[in-house]
Order: sequence, then C-alpha cells, then structure tokens
Amino acid sequence: MTERASGRAADEIRPVTITPNYTRHAEGSVLVEFGHTKVLCTASVEKGVPRFLRGQGQGWVTAEYGMLPRSTHSRMAREAARGKQGGRTMEIQRLIGRSLRAAMDLEKLGEYTITVDCDVIQADGGTRTAAITGACVALAHALNWMQAEGMIVHNPLKTLVAAISVGMVDGQAVADLEYTEDSKAETDMNVVMTAEGNMIEVQGTAEAAPFSHDELLAMLALARKAVNELVEHQRRVIAG
Amino acid sequence: MTERASGRAADEIRPVTITPNYTRHAEGSVLVEFGHTKVLCTASVEKGVPRFLRGQGQGWVTAEYGMLPRSTHSRMAREAARGKQGGRTMEIQRLIGRSLRAAMDLEKLGEYTITVDCDVIQADGGTRTAAITGACVALAHALNWMQAEGMIVHNPLKTLVAAISVGMVDGQAVADLEYTEDSKAETDMNVVMTAEGNMIEVQGTAEAAPFSHDELLAMLALARKAVNELVEHQRRVIAG
Amino acid sequence: MTERASGRAADEIRPVTITPNYTRHAEGSVLVEFGHTKVLCTASVEKGVPRFLRGQGQGWVTAEYGMLPRSTHSRMAREAARGKQGGRTMEIQRLIGRSLRAAMDLEKLGEYTITVDCDVIQADGGTRTAAITGACVALAHALNWMQAEGMIVHNPLKTLVAAISVGMVDGQAVADLEYTEDSKAETDMNVVMTAEGNMIEVQGTAEAAPFSHDELLAMLALARKAVNELVEHQRRVIAG
Amino acid sequence: MTERASGRAADEIRPVTITPNYTRHAEGSVLVEFGHTKVLCTASVEKGVPRFLRGQGQGWVTAEYGMLPRSTHSRMAREAARGKQGGRTMEIQRLIGRSLRAAMDLEKLGEYTITVDCDVIQADGGTRTAAITGACVALAHALNWMQAEGMIVHNPLKTLVAAISVGMVDGQAVADLEYTEDSKAETDMNVVMTAEGNMIEVQGTAEAAPFSHDELLAMLALARKAVNELVEHQRRVIAG
Amino acid sequence: MTERASGRAADEIRPVTITPNYTRHAEGSVLVEFGHTKVLCTASVEKGVPRFLRGQGQGWVTAEYGMLPRSTHSRMAREAARGKQGGRTMEIQRLIGRSLRAAMDLEKLGEYTITVDCDVIQADGGTRTAAITGACVALAHALNWMQAEGMIVHNPLKTLVAAISVGMVDGQAVADLEYTEDSKAETDMNVVMTAEGNMIEVQGTAEAAPFSHDELLAMLALARKAVNELVEHQRRVIAG
Amino acid sequence: MTERASGRAADEIRPVTITPNYTRHAEGSVLVEFGHTKVLCTASVEKGVPRFLRGQGQGWVTAEYGMLPRSTHSRMAREAARGKQGGRTMEIQRLIGRSLRAAMDLEKLGEYTITVDCDVIQADGGTRTAAITGACVALAHALNWMQAEGMIVHNPLKTLVAAISVGMVDGQAVADLEYTEDSKAETDMNVVMTAEGNMIEVQGTAEAAPFSHDELLAMLALARKAVNELVEHQRRVIAG
Repeated sequence: MTERASGRAADEIRPVTITPNYTRHAEGSVLVEFGHTKVLCTASVEKGVPRFLRGQGQGWVTAEYGMLPRSTHSRMAREAARGKQGGRTMEIQRLIGRSLRAAMDLEKLGEYTITVDCDVIQADGGTRTAAITGACVALAHALNWMQAEGMIVHNPLKTLVAAISVGMVDGQAVADLEYTEDSKAETDMNVVMTAEGNMIEVQGTAEAAPFSHDELLAMLALARKAVNELVEHQRRVIAG
Repeated sequence: MTERASGRAADEIRPVTITPNYTRHAEGSVLVEFGHTKVLCTASVEKGVPRFLRGQGQGWVTAEYGMLPRSTHSRMAREAARGKQGGRTMEIQRLIGRSLRAAMDLEKLGEYTITVDCDVIQADGGTRTAAITGACVALAHALNWMQAEGMIVHNPLKTLVAAISVGMVDGQAVADLEYTEDSKAETDMNVVMTAEGNMIEVQGTAEAAPFSHDELLAMLALARKAVNELVEHQRRVIAG
Repeated sequence: MTERASGRAADEIRPVTITPNYTRHAEGSVLVEFGHTKVLCTASVEKGVPRFLRGQGQGWVTAEYGMLPRSTHSRMAREAARGKQGGRTMEIQRLIGRSLRAAMDLEKLGEYTITVDCDVIQADGGTRTAAITGACVALAHALNWMQAEGMIVHNPLKTLVAAISVGMVDGQAVADLEYTEDSKAETDMNVVMTAEGNMIEVQGTAEAAPFSHDELLAMLALARKAVNELVEHQRRVIAG
Repeated sequence: MTERASGRAADEIRPVTITPNYTRHAEGSVLVEFGHTKVLCTASVEKGVPRFLRGQGQGWVTAEYGMLPRSTHSRMAREAARGKQGGRTMEIQRLIGRSLRAAMDLEKLGEYTITVDCDVIQADGGTRTAAITGACVALAHALNWMQAEGMIVHNPLKTLVAAISVGMVDGQAVADLEYTEDSKAETDMNVVMTAEGNMIEVQGTAEAAPFSHDELLAMLALARKAVNELVEHQRRVIAG
Repeated sequence: MTERASGRAADEIRPVTITPNYTRHAEGSVLVEFGHTKVLCTASVEKGVPRFLRGQGQGWVTAEYGMLPRSTHSRMAREAARGKQGGRTMEIQRLIGRSLRAAMDLEKLGEYTITVDCDVIQADGGTRTAAITGACVALAHALNWMQAEGMIVHNPLKTLVAAISVGMVDGQAVADLEYTEDSKAETDMNVVMTAEGNMIEVQGTAEAAPFSHDELLAMLALARKAVNELVEHQRRVIAG
Repeated sequence: MTERASGRAADEIRPVTITPNYTRHAEGSVLVEFGHTKVLCTASVEKGVPRFLRGQGQGWVTAEYGMLPRSTHSRMAREAARGKQGGRTMEIQRLIGRSLRAAMDLEKLGEYTITVDCDVIQADGGTRTAAITGACVALAHALNWMQAEGMIVHNPLKTLVAAISVGMVDGQAVADLEYTEDSKAETDMNVVMTAEGNMIEVQGTAEAAPFSHDELLAMLALARKAVNELVEHQRRVIAG
C-alpha cells in the first residue's frame, strides 16, 4: 500500500475546524477548515420566497459559491469581472443548495428564504465538501436565531448533512483528497450524507480511468466513516 | 410491487432508435431516441486545439448541450435570448464532454478538436443520458471520417460509452425514467459506463428522500443491464 | 440563358415538404423543408400579453429564430454560449414576427401570446423564407387548437402568408436560391406575400451589383408565382 | 387627394442640410438634417482589417448606429446601460454598412478599415435614410483625406449612395415620411439607390395593410426622384 | 512662469458657450462648450421614482454620461457594442448625478424623476466639468417647464452648481485644462461648487507626482474664481 | 462639541491591525482591520503586462475590489451572479490601483503585472481606505518576494501610501468614520497620502450639505495625522 504524500492513513481526514460567529452581520456564520482549505459560510435570512414558490406557505434555502481570486495556487480571473459565473461554480452552488434543502422541512420554515454564501478564502482540495459541511452549521445557527426571534415555531432542520471527497489515488481508495492528490486521482467522488448515514448526493467522476464496482464500494465505505466524524464536529459547534 | 405508469418492467428501458447521418453537413450526425425523448447529436471536426493544450501534440473533445424552446411541456425561454446558459445546461454539457473524453486516447487524435452538439428536439426525461449515448456514435462516425480522410492513422476511440438514468420511484428501483416518473422520483441517478461495464460517472441525487446503500446497489445493477443493451444498439449503428 | 447549377428552371422552386405535428408538446408544430433546408417551427400559446399591450384586449404573435450550431457547412458558435444573439438572427426573427402579425386579427386573439420558434436543423439557403412559410402553418394549427379548446371564438387568421427568396444570379432572375446560388448572387431578395398576392415584406439587397428597375420587376414576378405554389402546400397541410 | 399634415406635396422631401466638418477629430464628419431629423455621421480611418479579411489585400467599411437617449419624443433607455444593442439598432447599422460598401471598390482601399458612426441627435422619422445619405458624404471626405495623406492612390468610391423613406399614408404614396406620418403609414419602405438610379436596398414593410404591385411602383417612383435630389445635395457638399 | 500652450493665463478659462433649447423633445436641453469640448445635456422628466424611493413623497435626479465614439482623437469602441459601460463612464455619471442632487430640494420635486443625459459630441479635456455646468442649466429649464405645467408648485432648485478642472502643469496651478495639458498634468483636480462658493465635490488625483498642501490651496483658489465665472454664464442663459 | 457615538475623540482612528501572510498562495497577503472593517488584500505577481504597455520595458500594478455578499448589514446580490460589477466597485478598484501605482517606479518592476485583490470580509465603513492601506503592505511583501527570487534588482516601491476617511458629522470634523457615522455625515472625504504627507488622492463629497474651505482644511488636518499613524502600522508589519 502506497503511503499518502501527506502521511495520512487512507481513511484519515485532515484536521477539521469549524469556527462559529466568524463575522458579525450574518444570522449564521462559520469559517470551516479542512486542513488548508478554508471556506467562509454565511447564512442570510430574508422575508419572502422566489416567485415560483409564492403563496404556497413554504420557505426556500439556496446557496451561492465563489472563490476569492487568489484562493488558489495561481490567480483566477474574478467572475464578477468576467461578467459571468463559470460552469464549475454553478454546478457547485446547485449541489450545496440541494444538499441543504434535503436536510430541511421547508414548510416549517414558512415564507422565508435563507441564502447560504460559501466563499473560499483558501483552496487546497475539497472546497465543495467543506462548504456543505460548514454551510449546514451556518444554517443551523440561522434557524436558532429565527426561533429566538419568534419567526418560526418548530425547527425545520430534520437532520445534519456533511460531505467528503473520496477517490482512487495510485490504485488505493483514500478519503478527503488534498489538492496534490486530487490533481492526480484516477477517480474523484463527492459524497453528501445525512447524520444517519443515508446518501443525499453521490457524484463520482473517472478522471483518468473508469472505476469498478468494488472501487465504488471501497470509496463509499470511506465516505461513511468520514461523514460520521464530520457530523461529530458539527454537533459540537451547534451545541455551542 | 407497483406497476410503472408506462407498463414497463422495472428494468425495461424505452424503445431506443439511433438514426445515423441525420443531417448532411456534420462529420458525424445521429438522431437518438429513448421513447419520446429525441436528441440530435452532431460531431464537428476542426483543426487546432484550445489554448491550454497548444503544442502538446494531443487533441480535444468537447460537448455543448441545448434544448429547443418548445422541446418541453411548456415553453422555456431561449438561452440565446436570455444572454446566458443556465446552470443545468452547463452541468450537462460538462458531463457529456467528460464522458466522451473518457472513451478517447486524445494523443491519437492529434491537434484536432471535435465538438459534439447535443440539441434536444423533444424532451420526455433522460435527455442527458440519450445525449451521451448518441454523442458517442456521432463521435465514432466522425473518427471514421477522419481516418478515411487520412487525418488520423489509428482510431482514438478506446471503448464505447453509454448512459442511463435510474431511480427510486414509489420505493422501487427502475430504469430509464420518463418525465412523469422523473418528476416524482425519490432519487434520480445518472450512470455513464463503458462497454466493459466500468463506471465513468455516477451522479445520484436524493430528490425527495435520502437513499440507502442497498438502494444504490439496486439502481447500479439496473444501470449495468441497461447500458449493455444501449451498447448493443450503438454497435449495430456504428457497424452500419 | 445559363443553366442553374441545380438543373432547376429559373422559376422552379425546390421540392417543398411540410410535415405537421412533428413534435408532441407544442400547440402547433411543423417541419418545413425547401430542398435540403429544414426548419422546425413550433407555435406555443401562453396566457397574457407583453407589458406594452396589457389591458388593450388584444393578443400578440412573436417569433424567435435560431440555427443549430452544425446546421451549416462549418460549425457556427452557439449563440447561447456567446451570450447574445447576432444581428442577423435578430433581423430574421423580427421579420418572421412582423410577417405573421400581418396575417392576424390580433383583437380576435384576445389576451394570449403565441410564440413561434423557428429552429434551423439544416441550412442550404432560404432558411428565413422556409421559416415564415412553415411558421404560418404552425400558427394556423395552434389557432385551431385554441378554437377547439374554446379559448377563442373566431379564427384570427385573416389570410395565409408565405415567403420565397429570389435573386439575380449570373444576370438571370431565379427563384428559391440554394446556398451555392445565394453565395454568388448579384442580388438577393426575400419576398413575403399573402395568399391574395399582396406584399407584406420586400427586402432586396444588392450583394455584388446594384439592380435595375426591370430586374426588380422580374424578381417580383418569380416571387408571386412561387408564393402561389407555397400557399397551395400550406392549404393542403392545414386542411389535414 | 388628402393633404399631408406637413403641407408638403406627395413627392416633396423635407429641407435637407448637410454640414461638413461638424466635428474636429474625425477624418470625415457631417451633420445631416432631413427637416427636424438630425444625425451626426463621422468616418474614422484605422489601419488594418477585421480578422476574416486579413491578408487579402482589401479594405473594409462598416457602420455603427445609435440614438441619443432623448433624441426621441420620450426618453429611451441608453443601450450602453442596458448592456446590449437592440434588434432595430443592429438592423439599421448592418443596412448602413452594406449600403456604403456597395459604393466602394474595397481593393482600392487597401488594408484599412473605415468605421462610420451615425448618431441620432434628434429624431423625427427617417433617421436611417438620413444616416446613409450623410454617411456617404463623411466617407467621401475621409477618402479624400486618405488620398491627400498618400494612404491610397485611387479613390475607391465608385458612386454616391443616398436613401429615402417612402410609404403609403392614407392610401397615397408619399416621400420622406416624418414621425407623425411614419406612425400611421400603411406601408413603410426604405430605398437606397446609387447616383445612377440603381437600387442597393429596397426594404418595404406592410405596417397596417399589405401593399399591391401598383403601390410598390408608385413608391419606387417617388424614391427615385428624391434620391436624385439628395445626390445633388451630396455633390455640392463634397465639391466643397 | 511657463506660458500655457494655449497662451491662456493660469487662471483663464476657455471661452464658454451655453446654447439653450438645442434639441426639440427634451424638457431641458443645452449644448455646453468649454473651448472645443462640446457636450449635449438634455433633461427628461418622467412620472415616478426608482423603487428605493417609492412612497416617500420625494423625487429623484440622476444622470447618464456617454461619449460619441469619435468625439475623441482616435475612435473609441462604442459602449453599447461592447455590452457594458466602462468604469470611467460610471464614475463620471455618478459624479454628475450627485452634484445635481446637491442643488435640489427633492421633496419639492414630488414623485418625479429627472434624468439628465450628458453626451459628449467633441472632447478636448474637461468633459465632466462642462457636463455638470451644462446639466445644471438643462435641469433648471426642465424645472421651469414643470412649474409652467403645474407639476410642481415651488422650484426645487436651491442653488446653481458648476464645475471646473484645475491642475498642476509644469509646476504651476492652472484652470480649465484642455486635452494637451490634461495629458501631461502632474495633478488633475475636478471641483464642483455652488453659486455661493461652497464645495460639492473635490476630486484631486496625482497623475505624475503627489501634490502638497500649498498646491491644493492654489488649485482651489483657481477653481473658486472659475466657478464664479461659470455661474454668471449659467445665470444669463437661465434668465433667458 | 458633540461626543462621537463610538466615544472616540474627533481625531482618533479605530484600532488598526494588519495581519501578514494571512493566506498561503499569494506572493503578498494581509488581513487589514480598521475596527470591525476587515479586508483581505492579496498581491499576485504574473509575468507580462497588459497589451497597451507591451514592449515598453515597464511593469503594471492594478487592483480589484469586491465585497462578500454578507459582509454588509443586509445581504447584497453577488456581482458575479448579477453579471457585472457595479459603479461603486469600479470606482473603488480604480482608486486603489491609481494609489498603488503612485507609490511605484514601474520601470524598476520590469515586465511584470501585480494584481492586488481587496476583498471585504466584513464592512463597517472605510472599506476603501482600509483596502489601500492593506494593499500597500501586500504589495511591499510581493516586491520583497520578487527581489528574493531575483526577478527584480531594485525595489520599485518609492514610498508607502495609506488612506483614511474623514468627514463632517454633526458639524464637526472627525477621522475614520464607522458605518453609523458615515451614513449620517454631511460630508465624506477619502484622502490617500504618502508617508511624506503629500497627497495622492483627495475625494470629498457633500452628502447632505456643501462644505466650506475651512471645513476642508479641518478634515485634511485630521487626515494627515491619521495617515501618519497608519504608516507606522505599515512599517512595523513590513519590517516583520
């Protein structure tokens, strides 16, 4: 078995930190770190819902994702300056939004919209999985705030969701790929799961070689273990 | 076991038709039909490669996807008129492109770019999986044309790729969801596989309820069987 | 007199086919073919009118036009990807919309909007004239559907409109230019007429040399004859 | 015969003024007035040609058109602020460009591009025909300047082009419609002709009612007479 | 003391002309000239206010700025064609809007919006200061028109505002820089003042070298004198 | 004399922190805090210069500015999602860029471009002045890195620049306005100065009332004192 460049065991995730109340204005705000990957997640509560939901007595949760231009090894053009969000950005923010909505009872939310902004301060692989993991905590905090303010009666959060990247690197299934692993992985898979271990999203992509059924199972097993650990982190921060 | 609205068995895909040489100008052109879903796939060969590949002696395969405004039940705004491609469009065309590249030896292609346009004439669920399945045939035809023209010596196509949607509907795993099933599925999963049964992409999304490990396995089994059948269709058309 | 490359007589149009009910979802849908030129025309009925017409008790008919990227000899960039519709596209869709409205009594339509999408599947000259000719049939079908549904009492279609391109090629007036003729024509003229032989639009452009009054008259005579034939095709299809 | 609101005879055009050297920087610059319609036309000479012409030893002439936001009765949104040029703007600037190129021998121009900007200071109907008429003078001046500078040897201008709007108003053919006539015309037709009386562009549109062959002939006769007068104005200004 | 290229004294501004009623449609319209710099300023009155002001019983004044493509020495790309307004344009139109609002009692205006368009016909330095100076007169005329029409009872104009550029050129403070001075100035400063000599905007920029406190004072003294003269011009034109 | 809401003296700036090496990838990276205002400034070095500078043997420094959507009290729409940068953003990033270039000898930089990204993590007034102050430090660090890498021989930084906002609040000149002061200030002025006390930019805006010459002088005196203090902070961080 090849050793990982990082010295980590195959099933070992990077040190995880979730710092609550990272900024002052948002109703929920955390800085989530998976090793050197740092993402600021803020949850903003607004009255009203998008047009397609009006008058249905339910709320909405959506997400936006962005990378600061120099969060990456070499500078990326600013999407605001280029005048549009790229395909990868759209794909990721749609994924985060779907993942968070899967954890919610939107009828209990009432006609409010919560927008969770996930902005990458520093990238070292796994920004989308860190974002989902942090966003869920920011969302939980915003919901607590809404309850304290009397805006909602029952907490709409049904479960916690967390996410991890797994992959095949040098023929071995590994968890929580950092950038150097990610860029040479044969397969890269992002898994979003609930606290109960059910799957919300599974997105596996053969980057360099197709993957077999057994490899898929090996990666999923790593994902389940990692998500369990991430949910523990989330619970500690939410409990405060 | 609930019967499917269509009367199909759980593992039964819709009638598949792949019509070659559907238009005159493209180097490869097929109309692919999965039941009422109809997608026109054209492969266009152009000299040169994108900037990031120049001088590396390899080629490129990319895809674009679009839906005609009234391919759907109610008319959608034309993306060209709105001034941008939506997130779903970008997500799908990136998926098609990655899937096709996974079937290719890009060094054998030399410094050519093949663009496969997948335009949905009529939609009834499964447009992205039909698109990938048809696009692979259009690509194969274009490569045959290049060989006949002496532009390439060895065929760069390493395998065939095909795709199918599977999902959990009324608690049952089913293959090749049509629109009415898709819109009420608990889980929707798109699987892209090679002719050998290895996985290129697995994208499972819990629409209404998280899915369990066993459900994932049941859906994957259906996908494998369906892809086998699709590859048979592809082979017959390519053999001509 | 030079023979036409196609072997057609100067006043001879290409074989015309109008296939009704080409797709399932639209209220009116035809595939129109002028030789190798193929355009899919779908008419979509929606409740309501644009802002500038609200509360005036009349309806609206508008058109959009697009070319599939590889409908042409060499691939064109997709307008949705470039982020805007080109000048030619806008010019043509405005022309189609005006032509259709000239055939309508918009007060009889009531506060509905009918959008006719004309998408070119394959181009070989004359796409805008084929589009107008097919769009009128799709519109007629959609109006029949509205009457059957009880949405309108009286049919708002006052007449049929059809269109043909005529031009000066090698000093000779010819009808229904195909691509190879179009690209070397001295003058290109598109004529939209009613079933009664009155003119809706006349757009003549000197491509290579100015045209004289006599040449204009010669081209108009060809147009009148061709439109008569096209209207016969339309009538047969509408009669069903 | 109904009298025109303006008191003009049916074939009488508005007072025409062409003021040369209206601004300092452009190589050619005129303010053209057709009654209250005022358009500033500037011709700018630049080295080089667009990509599609490179290395072919010929030049290019193109035009851009714009209306100042309050050139019209009620203020229009500024196109630069809306982020795109509308369909009418594109249609008109393409028309101006084609008209000017029809007057040019582009090989004699050499690898230069001349851009003629036509900006409407005040609109009262006929802005595009005034623009073409003025643009041709600005172009002539720019070509004279190029000859004086030794940039070209032979003058590439083969003829003069001028344009007029004609139409059917209250059942009568009239020339040079002002805004109040234009807005109630049954048919509106713009005719671009050479000094020799040949046609460059004919664009007739039935606004309220189709037009007959005889009406077309009546309108063309008015156009010919008006263009003759306009060419006289152009000649006087160019002769200086 | 170096003589200015223009022969003007350090505190001498260029000949100023303000031509009222320059166009017919706008409620206020002036052509303002500072030497060769010519800007058309039109004020348009519209019922209603922007969303953020609705229901507050006050009005709004805003400005837009543009340069005709060949108002400058070499042709600039048209902003409408590029699809966006540049940073300089936005900066200037925000400046003009703020300056005009500083002269207004917006409550007296009632729920109307006045948009002042400043379009540069010819540029020779100082276009933004000429624009502000002319825009204030166009605004005054529009307000007079509103009073005459009975739309407002009391004139909302509290004072006149005018603007001048000053700068350090060759170590000397000078007023009203023309293009050749502007392009070599060490410091460029735009000052907007009221008729009473108070400051609305001061924007000083070190182009080539930082400026000292004394230089700032010297420039401000020139600005005060110049604005006094400009206000005299404004008063004469408004008095009519 | 009114006391400030914050309890600060009129000339007292908020606690300033400049944290160096805040992120890993950028050649220079600081988090600058003026009280609750927090801006991340990263300097990125790239080979080459913009087109307009090519072949002139000098370098370029430019800046971009952005606010995270929930850096503010209520959430702002993300500029990347809206498809363009607003006028305020453009104005600020142009200001930062000019200020930094004023501190540089661009010929000593050689043909490199340094882009300084200033992203607001949390806003409480004074984001642009904090950004300039932090950006200068990030720039200094990037230049040190270039020297260490042997990319430049002599340090191109001629001086340090720092910036502060000053204003008239309740009739009193105060330094370093926080959000609650800023929103009720009569006048708001941003001053950029060199370490030597010379002025780079002075931008004073009368928000609620014009300002007098004496008020201008009072504000400038506060700015000079504050910039002195900021430069001390910069020096300590750069010295490391």
